[in-house]
Amino acid sequence: MSVGLEYPTSLLPVKGIRLAAESANIYSNKRDDLVLIELAEGSVVSAVFTKNSFCAAPVQIARQHLNEFEPRYCLINAGNANAGTGKQGLLNSHSTCKVLADLTDCKEMEVLPFSTGVIGEDLPVENIKKTLPSLVEQLSDDQWLNAAAAIMTTDTIPKAVSNHISIEGTTVNITGIAKGAGMIKPDMATMLAFIATDANIAKELLNKMLSNAVNKSFNRITIDGDTSTNDACVLIATAQSNNTLIDNQDSETYKTLENELVNVFCDLARSIVRDGEGATKFITIKVNGGKEQAECLAVAYKIAESPLVKTAFTASDPNWGRILAAIGNSGIHELDISKISIHLDNFSIVENGQRSSTYTEFEAKKVMNQDEIILSVSLNRGLCMEEIWTTDLSHEYITINAEYRT
Amino acid sequence: MSVGLEYPTSLLPVKGIRLAAESANIYSNKRDDLVLIELAEGSVVSAVFTKNSFCAAPVQIARQHLNEFEPRYCLINAGNANAGTGKQGLLNSHSTCKVLADLTDCKEMEVLPFSTGVIGEDLPVENIKKTLPSLVEQLSDDQWLNAAAAIMTTDTIPKAVSNHISIEGTTVNITGIAKGAGMIKPDMATMLAFIATDANIAKELLNKMLSNAVNKSFNRITIDGDTSTNDACVLIATAQSNNTLIDNQDSETYKTLENELVNVFCDLARSIVRDGEGATKFITIKVNGGKEQAECLAVAYKIAESPLVKTAFTASDPNWGRILAAIGNSGIHELDISKISIHLDNFSIVENGQRSSTYTEFEAKKVMNQDEIILSVSLNRGLCMEEIWTTDLSHEYITINAEYRT
Repeated sequence: MSVGLEYPTSLLPVKGIRLAAESANIYSNKRDDLVLIELAEGSVVSAVFTKNSFCAAPVQIARQHLNEFEPRYCLINAGNANAGTGKQGLLNSHSTCKVLADLTDCKEMEVLPFSTGVIGEDLPVENIKKTLPSLVEQLSDDQWLNAAAAIMTTDTIPKAVSNHISIEGTTVNITGIAKGAGMIKPDMATMLAFIATDANIAKELLNKMLSNAVNKSFNRITIDGDTSTNDACVLIATAQSNNTLIDNQDSETYKTLENELVNVFCDLARSIVRDGEGATKFITIKVNGGKEQAECLAVAYKIAESPLVKTAFTASDPNWGRILAAIGNSGIHELDISKISIHLDNFSIVENGQRSSTYTEFEAKKVMNQDEIILSVSLNRGLCMEEIWTTDLSHEYITINAEYRT
Repeated sequence: MSVGLEYPTSLLPVKGIRLAAESANIYSNKRDDLVLIELAEGSVVSAVFTKNSFCAAPVQIARQHLNEFEPRYCLINAGNANAGTGKQGLLNSHSTCKVLADLTDCKEMEVLPFSTGVIGEDLPVENIKKTLPSLVEQLSDDQWLNAAAAIMTTDTIPKAVSNHISIEGTTVNITGIAKGAGMIKPDMATMLAFIATDANIAKELLNKMLSNAVNKSFNRITIDGDTSTNDACVLIATAQSNNTLIDNQDSETYKTLENELVNVFCDLARSIVRDGEGATKFITIKVNGGKEQAECLAVAYKIAESPLVKTAFTASDPNWGRILAAIGNSGIHELDISKISIHLDNFSIVENGQRSSTYTEFEAKKVMNQDEIILSVSLNRGLCMEEIWTTDLSHEYITINAEYRT
């Protein structure tokens, strides 16, 4: 089940990036579950990781490796999170990096490991090690889609997006892949995302760009309010497109690149929500008229994470009472409910904290019956606004999570 | 569906309290939906209300009335929350108080109104007014159970508890009723509770006792993390048992009364959880070894409100990875996951942040298959502990909330 999500097509290669995907028999039903991404020498990498205190072995190692060297490889497996696995988990993750480093003649610290899947089971290291030689052999610049498919867990459709821009007459490509599905919440939810561009950009500006882009995309989505142990978002710039080094954040080239990058990030983030566990609706929540960004976000997340609001969306029930109750619960100081108005798309359902005078159940229901709905809340107490994306809470979510061992 | 909840029996009358319940045709399927509680002159009353900024008309009026006078009547209707109803809602609630005041020869401000049910529909005032005369006529001290049944909404079983103690050789009775079911969360969730004792106690100590008792009971439960617009908990002391006035909080009599009162409050709070929407399990979450109470509560609520943990309970899946992930998400500063241990009842599932060496799926599953489970978390970083009660998240919850208009 997914909402308005299409199978990715026409992915652009990124100069300096080669990928390969293959089965390492981590899943019992054989499918590609191991991915290798090779980064050309001279690439710069920026990454953000889960803020969960309980973070997986590969997250700890990737953080440490990234602090020491610019990576040459990302090694990603699906089917096993290597989380809650203690010292053995660290040893296991290290040993896969070591074997890859030996095979490719790089340092172990130039390999970043990533895992997603079941928590608490030992990583099948031997399977991974055995698969690495042929994975290295198959590296190619046209494997983005296969890589996107191989990192999926409960995802139903691979998530991949490409974009290209012209900088100083040079074409710069951006391609990204991501996986998500459950345990999705801001602060890097159960998601992995790898986005690469062949642009030439200074490392500190790449860090800044990643931070901005994540805040506008992956940190604006929630499916069930749970944040995973393994999340990571990696932004790679290979510098192979030969544009003049972007080293000024006020330059036009910086802004152009950031703009397109944010588009790719947002497309990937929304595609994670569209394929959220049990999703039957894709809901955009806009909150405007707040005194601060923070209060707009608090209201938006309280609505998005209220089980009562989410189940009303599942039932296509324009239950404005539940929405107002969620807003009232958002902990905003001196919130005046009588100033609040709410729209479903362009249809007014609440004005002055009450049912709109023009409300009709028929019209409200018509909007709620859509697959995609924009819920707009006006707090009417300031000038700030925020926007987040979420899904409903359906029987299918319960079925998936009462059956799948995360 | 409810878990280990029995139909209340042997409720004790409380001297100075008379009650009546009748149908005012607020529900389309005829059932008792209007309740009157009469308090003898000389009673003192303490109450706490929802902290939702979006609070219903009766909540606003009850707060105001209680500030001015000691109440003589509580008038409660189920089936309509009179919330999101603006000025008309306030007028409607006032007018029912006024009619009752005229009938009983008291002041309008001596009546406290309460409503629970659908949000955003006008209160059927005429129905209520028409029913008031016969309600007043039927007042009797043995109507606690009927009152408990009449205030229910999606509850499946009435909630009522009695207790008695001896103070200076005088028998003091305590009887309480409550309703709950959905939108249940601390800070006074969709619940109404009325607890009365015939003890003679000073008003300021009654306030203190209510605050303590609520913090140990109704503020330690969560079903879905949603807090309602109409919640109230009322504690009445009628002073009819003729014990010497309790006016010293260090006295034995104060402690004895508080102790029994806390028991009644906790029984009522737990019965709300046992009858939570779609509940198939009753789960006690204990967190010990915290540096502060607040961090124990943060961990407990993060576990209790994680949809992934809740669905694992539904499936009787001892998914310790999801529990650790929820703990890791609780925002505790410098939390060391490698110190954490977790038990299901007395069975160890996690030690040092990993699966216990003695863990077996068979044993863990056996505990998870029970209707009632104690989940204990040791943070091993301090001396504080907390305990809360919650339920799982089942298909039934979705069904109820995708069909019932709150």
